[in-house]
Amino acid sequence: MAIKAEIIAVGTELLLGQITNTNGQWISEKLATKGIGVYFHQVVGDNKARIKSTLSQALDRSDLIFITGGLGPTDDDLTREIVAELVERELIENDEMLTQLKQYFKQSNRVMSKNNYKQAQVIAGAKIIPNPIGTAPGMMVEYQSSLLILMPGVPSEMKYMMTESVLPFLEKNYQLKEVIVSKMLRCIGIGEAQLETKVKNLIEQQSNPTIAPLAADGEVALRLTALANSKAEANRLIEAKEKELHALIGSYIYGSDEQTLTEVVIDRLKEKNQTIAGAESLTGGKFADQIVSIPGSSRIFNGSLISYTEDAKISALGVNRSTIDQYGMVSKQTAYEMAKRAQGVFNSTYGISFTGVAGPDPLEGQPVGTVFVCLYHSDKDYLIEKFHFSKPRNSIRALSVKKGLEMIYKYLK
Amino acid sequence: MAIKAEIIAVGTELLLGQITNTNGQWISEKLATKGIGVYFHQVVGDNKARIKSTLSQALDRSDLIFITGGLGPTDDDLTREIVAELVERELIENDEMLTQLKQYFKQSNRVMSKNNYKQAQVIAGAKIIPNPIGTAPGMMVEYQSSLLILMPGVPSEMKYMMTESVLPFLEKNYQLKEVIVSKMLRCIGIGEAQLETKVKNLIEQQSNPTIAPLAADGEVALRLTALANSKAEANRLIEAKEKELHALIGSYIYGSDEQTLTEVVIDRLKEKNQTIAGAESLTGGKFADQIVSIPGSSRIFNGSLISYTEDAKISALGVNRSTIDQYGMVSKQTAYEMAKRAQGVFNSTYGISFTGVAGPDPLEGQPVGTVFVCLYHSDKDYLIEKFHFSKPRNSIRALSVKKGLEMIYKYLK
Repeated sequence: MAIKAEIIAVGTELLLGQITNTNGQWISEKLATKGIGVYFHQVVGDNKARIKSTLSQALDRSDLIFITGGLGPTDDDLTREIVAELVERELIENDEMLTQLKQYFKQSNRVMSKNNYKQAQVIAGAKIIPNPIGTAPGMMVEYQSSLLILMPGVPSEMKYMMTESVLPFLEKNYQLKEVIVSKMLRCIGIGEAQLETKVKNLIEQQSNPTIAPLAADGEVALRLTALANSKAEANRLIEAKEKELHALIGSYIYGSDEQTLTEVVIDRLKEKNQTIAGAESLTGGKFADQIVSIPGSSRIFNGSLISYTEDAKISALGVNRSTIDQYGMVSKQTAYEMAKRAQGVFNSTYGISFTGVAGPDPLEGQPVGTVFVCLYHSDKDYLIEKFHFSKPRNSIRALSVKKGLEMIYKYLK
Repeated sequence: MAIKAEIIAVGTELLLGQITNTNGQWISEKLATKGIGVYFHQVVGDNKARIKSTLSQALDRSDLIFITGGLGPTDDDLTREIVAELVERELIENDEMLTQLKQYFKQSNRVMSKNNYKQAQVIAGAKIIPNPIGTAPGMMVEYQSSLLILMPGVPSEMKYMMTESVLPFLEKNYQLKEVIVSKMLRCIGIGEAQLETKVKNLIEQQSNPTIAPLAADGEVALRLTALANSKAEANRLIEAKEKELHALIGSYIYGSDEQTLTEVVIDRLKEKNQTIAGAESLTGGKFADQIVSIPGSSRIFNGSLISYTEDAKISALGVNRSTIDQYGMVSKQTAYEMAKRAQGVFNSTYGISFTGVAGPDPLEGQPVGTVFVCLYHSDKDYLIEKFHFSKPRNSIRALSVKKGLEMIYKYLK
């Protein structure tokens, strides 16, 4: 018999529309990959009677009940108490939790107020879900034939608990017969419509695995989803379909699943023992930030110089004033000098530069959305591309970085 | 008696986590401004029995039942049929709808398939909600004391119907004397529990406006929500409570509603005609990126130097090797020199530096999460703070930037 799961989000701010219940979507996606069927999502406010009735209904119809939110220190955080009541157990202050809590506050130099002690309370007999990145520990409580899983509403903490504790626990303790395996094939340098046309036949014949084209953040991807009785079988189905797709669009595929273009580019540079440095104008550090967000990037990234004003380009970066005077800040000549200087200043294999008009106003008569990106290796070996993005300011900045990464990726290929 | 609303989203793709139920958030937000309280969100799959039980439960407890999704042309679009069954009415093909539907397909040069005829079916006695931008018309059906509002799941179509038809209808036909006005007071430099303790009395006596503490991204906020017969009256209530709160915690409040700390800091610098430059190590451009993301920041921001490696700190930024050798890259001495150099290189009023251990591994014997931030104005006038964040790599980096902004904010105050 298939396991029935239900996801309940607790919090009046959700019912007031102040935040979106993204936890429901995230948990559902993860459970789907384990072949666990989610039958209901519910959102209920910080109201004792309504939380209680929602939970009792869930206990009647669901095997796994995921509850997010209501574990905070404040008086309107009710989940802990109500679940204890429903499963007829005591709430006990847990010494270990209290110690961890005190430690957490000590380390983050924050004052632990009386209310926080509440967060060290644990339902008798519950399995504690560690939460090293927050104050509220989670809990798993068995009651009758159901398992209640209590987690904080803060997405980062919930995701940590799911990945580190809850999902492994479910895999170990439940017979998860059917498995759904999904794989994303990430593409670059092709539009969604164009991609769909190329794989149209495969999509039309699709049954298992299914193929769905997705577009986001200037990239497109294909999601393959296979259903089978074993992970091995599902993977076989995916691999087979993947081969077909590679034959059709292999040249556009740069990676799969959670892999990002940034990671792929960093790995390529590591393989070649090469380094890169940046000179950023309109992107204002976004390129560097994306590189540095990946652990271990220091091996390939020395630094980036953000010269947001003309003077900074000249004084800090060392671009010739004459170049800017003659061609303007937003020009291929300035882009070239910026990239070349970045390579020199940081003494790297490559320099990459971003200069353009993020808006709201045009610059030097160039329309908003005009961007030059230069990838420099030597005076004989460099690339300059001009782009135009008809997007809002911060999309222009993000797409510029994406195009820069694409240029590096293609160059290193 | 207050009107009770409930929002039900129908669609298996939501339970598979392929999409997020943003409709629930959007509808809730709109209803809140009309003083209509939303008590539950539900998501149910394309399954007849479960949709039926979910809807009957809603009919028992809610006055307004918003149902999104399941109005499409395919066989798993069940909402129309099930609602007709529940309210004991016929489904009738509506000529007007059929004409519109045919027209729609003609205009968009699409072939109208046999399934689409289903979308011209209307529940007897239902009020039709026009949908010029899609194929599925919506419906409003009264049953017993409840009103069921059927809309497509496609956000753009649902939003069009809500704005053009449903909200005006509710205003006209329901005594919506009350309006709800919300205001967020954004605080910095205080934890959620600590904040709640300070305003505990106000929260305990609270009735209207209500006060709710919220925490996110290293910041806390108080949400005031006032219910009144007019917007003016609601605003008066909010202002009055705001005064009381300012008296108690004014020193922690930096802004309100959508205002960000970054914007406030930029405005302060503009007022003073001062400029700032950065020297970033572990933050790797995140500080600069946040500043540059705000239009017009070039007036106060010259640039930032991202020196991710020791050599870059020395060669590009000009920190003394001896300082790094003696005290290490992650030290207050290095933070001081970085900030001072940033100010000099970019010839700004202030320099701010970030150096620390983002992880995954410790550095120079310093544990992951150790961060030094220095705000430099002159050799006699600078601040250095040491932080420890027990968070994942990118949270450490984000919190470092937040603390830096907090230091600037307090200094300029």
